[in-house]
Amino acid sequence: MKKIINAPQDVVPEMVDGLVRAYPQYLKQVPDTLAMVRSDTASMVGKVGIVSGGGSGHEPAHAGFVGQGMLSAAVAGQVFTSPTPDQIYAAIKAVDQGQGVFLVVKNYSGDVMNFDMAKDMAEMDDIEVQSIVVDDDIAVKDSLYTQGRRGVAGTVLMHKVLGAAADQGASLDELSQLAQAVLPHLNTVAVALSAATVPEVGKPGFELADDEIEYGVGIHSEPGYRREKIKPSKALVTELLAKIDERLHLDASHQYAVLVNGMGATPLMEQYIFSHDLLDALAEKGIKPAFMKVGNYMTSIEMAGISLTIFELTDAKWLDYLTYPVKTIAW
Amino acid sequence: MKKIINAPQDVVPEMVDGLVRAYPQYLKQVPDTLAMVRSDTASMVGKVGIVSGGGSGHEPAHAGFVGQGMLSAAVAGQVFTSPTPDQIYAAIKAVDQGQGVFLVVKNYSGDVMNFDMAKDMAEMDDIEVQSIVVDDDIAVKDSLYTQGRRGVAGTVLMHKVLGAAADQGASLDELSQLAQAVLPHLNTVAVALSAATVPEVGKPGFELADDEIEYGVGIHSEPGYRREKIKPSKALVTELLAKIDERLHLDASHQYAVLVNGMGATPLMEQYIFSHDLLDALAEKGIKPAFMKVGNYMTSIEMAGISLTIFELTDAKWLDYLTYPVKTIAW
Repeated sequence: MKKIINAPQDVVPEMVDGLVRAYPQYLKQVPDTLAMVRSDTASMVGKVGIVSGGGSGHEPAHAGFVGQGMLSAAVAGQVFTSPTPDQIYAAIKAVDQGQGVFLVVKNYSGDVMNFDMAKDMAEMDDIEVQSIVVDDDIAVKDSLYTQGRRGVAGTVLMHKVLGAAADQGASLDELSQLAQAVLPHLNTVAVALSAATVPEVGKPGFELADDEIEYGVGIHSEPGYRREKIKPSKALVTELLAKIDERLHLDASHQYAVLVNGMGATPLMEQYIFSHDLLDALAEKGIKPAFMKVGNYMTSIEMAGISLTIFELTDAKWLDYLTYPVKTIAW
Repeated sequence: MKKIINAPQDVVPEMVDGLVRAYPQYLKQVPDTLAMVRSDTASMVGKVGIVSGGGSGHEPAHAGFVGQGMLSAAVAGQVFTSPTPDQIYAAIKAVDQGQGVFLVVKNYSGDVMNFDMAKDMAEMDDIEVQSIVVDDDIAVKDSLYTQGRRGVAGTVLMHKVLGAAADQGASLDELSQLAQAVLPHLNTVAVALSAATVPEVGKPGFELADDEIEYGVGIHSEPGYRREKIKPSKALVTELLAKIDERLHLDASHQYAVLVNGMGATPLMEQYIFSHDLLDALAEKGIKPAFMKVGNYMTSIEMAGISLTIFELTDAKWLDYLTYPVKTIAW
């Protein structure tokens, strides 16, 4: 393991400290926690707070998306480990403005349980809380740490849509309805070229040969659905798009948003080439995305690979939410 | 070599195509070239154009910094290879609004020569052109492809400062004076954990053992100044900061901007930890940066490592330029 770290057990607190001190104009740390709240608390007044988070190792998710127009707070757990309920609750409490707080949870058993407990704690304190569990990874049903499908990069689009609506004054109930409406239209699938190494473990989560790739790998090195020899970018696009199409039935008369997401160690050069092939493949189906982003949004430490998210925009307002201005570090 | 690409010789045109089609609201391609100009040409009217570029493989540099408040155009060469004079000239011509064009060139022999020739071509067409050659890498004097010091991540801060001034109406002469004033205050040094692989070469530019790092490596795998066993982040900060301090003489009564730059494959987790250690080390000297950014700005394909840039803000206006709003993909 060759990493720029100090003691492996200090990785998360040191990372959070570095992030908050580098960007005080965006983030402040809730004292004695690994919860980060947006600095411009004035812009939160009268609005529903949105809290997300989860295990660390997915940077810039989630703290990079805290700021006006997106998340109100993010809670960092240890690497690939859910934050504890008390820390999530600290974030809820820090952002509540009397309008309630909405939680965006990725579908991992630990996260679901701990965000639920935090919700109970908040409700005992008369803070109204609702939530959505995002399960956009269509690669596999049930996984190492998940009942059902995993929550991955599509979660960032959920943050964006909800954050814009909340900033425009949506109520807690309205946000909940919006989240439920959006959820079935988020579809993600990934391809991995190499695995992440959790600092405290010291070796990669799985091994791939020098010429091997795996489709459908999760963001915590959960197994995918097929392993094979590396192929050209064009062929990877064909595979991932076909997988998504099985569920989504891409249609030239519909509108789509696309997120091409680097898993951590994959350079933008490769992400842009993949995007070129993707846009060609979509064009063959008569589709031009209404919205697109390419970059590292939901990573898996230094895993090499790309995930593709296609979000069907069945409501015209969702495109406005995606393009609504934000003040964040990483959107 | 395991990369998400098609034919190695198609890497650059496919990348540029993917980038421009993914972000039509930011970029448009000058037809039949690898030059990318900002889409919102209306915002350029009456202003001096700023053109940068160089070999590809440093994404998001330079096209990610094209947009209002920063660059007017970026020209992409083949991987680690200067763009040709005719391509640079095409970019100059595309952005000139009659106020002249300023070129930001990284100090590599090929770039210096080709940007100079493009300048001559433009002047024959009565387009006034001035330029700066950025040489912020203090690690070594003279290098494989450079007379003097290399131009690296500090170039992005040069883009930012000049772009803000140009957007506020600075003349070509004023931009040239500003660039000359800023240049000696940009100081960068890097540490590498692994090398980049140029697609057409197919193997890494150098080899480091599993427990080895090298200080002072360039963004094209140029040799650094010392190779040793990997050390904790804190010790890497001490080394890089001492190297910069030799030249800069850090002083608590002065103001500084800091750029912590990932080289491509280094996850944000490590960059934030490095930032934590850096901010501690600076605090010991009584220094708190007036401005800071952390992320992948000037990469070397999938090289693992970090560069540290410290920019002494000897003029209060420079801080305003750094925080001036921009519309770009990657700032």
